[in-house]
Amino acid sequence: MKDEVRVFSPGTVSNVACGFDILGFPLESVGDEMVVRKTNEKGIKINNLSEHKLPLDISKNVASVSALALIDSLKPDCGFEIDIIKKIKPGSGIGSSGSSAAGCVFAINKLMDEPFTISDLIKFAMKGELISSVSEHADNIAPALLGGFVLVKSISPLEIIKIPSPDDLYCTVVHPQIELKTSYSRSILPNDISLIDATKQIANFGSLIHSLHVSDYDLIKTSLNDHLIEKHRSKLIPNFHEVKSAALNSRALGCSISGSGPSIFALSQGIDIAEAVGESMKKVYNETEIEFSTYVSKINDKGVKII
Amino acid sequence: MKDEVRVFSPGTVSNVACGFDILGFPLESVGDEMVVRKTNEKGIKINNLSEHKLPLDISKNVASVSALALIDSLKPDCGFEIDIIKKIKPGSGIGSSGSSAAGCVFAINKLMDEPFTISDLIKFAMKGELISSVSEHADNIAPALLGGFVLVKSISPLEIIKIPSPDDLYCTVVHPQIELKTSYSRSILPNDISLIDATKQIANFGSLIHSLHVSDYDLIKTSLNDHLIEKHRSKLIPNFHEVKSAALNSRALGCSISGSGPSIFALSQGIDIAEAVGESMKKVYNETEIEFSTYVSKINDKGVKII
Repeated sequence: MKDEVRVFSPGTVSNVACGFDILGFPLESVGDEMVVRKTNEKGIKINNLSEHKLPLDISKNVASVSALALIDSLKPDCGFEIDIIKKIKPGSGIGSSGSSAAGCVFAINKLMDEPFTISDLIKFAMKGELISSVSEHADNIAPALLGGFVLVKSISPLEIIKIPSPDDLYCTVVHPQIELKTSYSRSILPNDISLIDATKQIANFGSLIHSLHVSDYDLIKTSLNDHLIEKHRSKLIPNFHEVKSAALNSRALGCSISGSGPSIFALSQGIDIAEAVGESMKKVYNETEIEFSTYVSKINDKGVKII
Repeated sequence: MKDEVRVFSPGTVSNVACGFDILGFPLESVGDEMVVRKTNEKGIKINNLSEHKLPLDISKNVASVSALALIDSLKPDCGFEIDIIKKIKPGSGIGSSGSSAAGCVFAINKLMDEPFTISDLIKFAMKGELISSVSEHADNIAPALLGGFVLVKSISPLEIIKIPSPDDLYCTVVHPQIELKTSYSRSILPNDISLIDATKQIANFGSLIHSLHVSDYDLIKTSLNDHLIEKHRSKLIPNFHEVKSAALNSRALGCSISGSGPSIFALSQGIDIAEAVGESMKKVYNETEIEFSTYVSKINDKGVKII
């Protein structure tokens, strides 16, 4: 058994247009790294080796709180030291806290010879993510741990379903670097929606699940439409509609808000289109004062991994 | 080319718990029969060979209005006489009008050597069904014409998706013979619903589509739950909750209202369970004054057929 592991824990796109709060997938080229090692001293110690500021109080850091939930269940004879090399900027909308939570419990489970199932790990990581969020959710953590498109059917009891998806599906993300708190992004959503809009969303979501199963890109395209959330949250994201139009004009299958924003994601068939989509999205922000990053990534079918 | 065809047009269960207005499937052992023959005289003539009363005015009968929509598009040199042998009681909630509409356009298309696609036929039949309904919908007609589980993603433009389903899935229907108008059953639904309930329903619907693809009966079971409609419409159906409990206690995978009611359907794995479920449902109504019929049927994977 090793005494130290280094893991890559991916960033994730959640909501995926029509799957608010219940669908997500991880990225391959964007994620955090963490090194976790056993220590003789019990408990958790965290080191921030990133350029991003992170809470070092173990009761306030997503990774350590997740680790503590695991330790509380396992009661191991050792402790753990966690080096966090955070590459996903917190507050980006591509699952920064989910990445830390998932990576850390995955690494400790490996060090302890895998006493826990993925479901267990999701539950521990949810405890961690809760401290950076207004409510428990698993639509970043579950895809980060399982890989691929993951449907969170229910949180309590935890029901998680991995949905097959076509090989040639690529994601483009543009992250306009504005501050947007998840709690605010959630607070502007209505409590009630029309039954008519809900019915359209249900139909789109069902057809998205079917289209992923059968690799029908045309149907993925017509399914990636959100009737419930985007119209509200897009107001918080500068130039959202121009970016979306640019992506669709460059033949993206769909484009919407990643998580609670401000990142915007697009899905495309093939890397060439995904890159062209990225160029088009960039062009919009290049004409503004807004700083931004863009990423092009295959859908990550494996999730967190040892590197 | 034949001058006369006889078709069986199946009854259908729509809504299917979590798929309000967008999902349906046809039955194998319940449906109408229709004989359609070419006539030298142009136009449509209908004969009711059923025990059920039907409008004979061709502008008010679902079958003839559907036929007229087809004729209006095709402009054939002949007319058609339609014998309707209605076996599905109108107002039952198992797609009586959809059955007549679908059967009639299917039969005329066959007689004319199939100039139309299934999508065309759905559109003609929707014109017919509209006269017995408050709004255009295809969640009975499309399954009746296509067979199997059919997702109506959109009415305009018409987008219809056939979802694969496991072989061993059986449906039990009990039809308590009370009068319940579709228009009333629709009028009691709220215009607005909570985002939380909608999210649960979307998750259930997505997992139902996935579970049908992978023949996961346990997941079909946990997915067949309706958070939006059943709580309202069940008030209009006597003994609904007892019937549902009886079905679930007899190991049905799920049980809810068929279409807008009053029929109640249950899905089960295998015919033996489906029959036991039927016996349990019957028992509830046997203890009341309410007349009822029950049916046990395989999911009909073919839809309307020539007999």
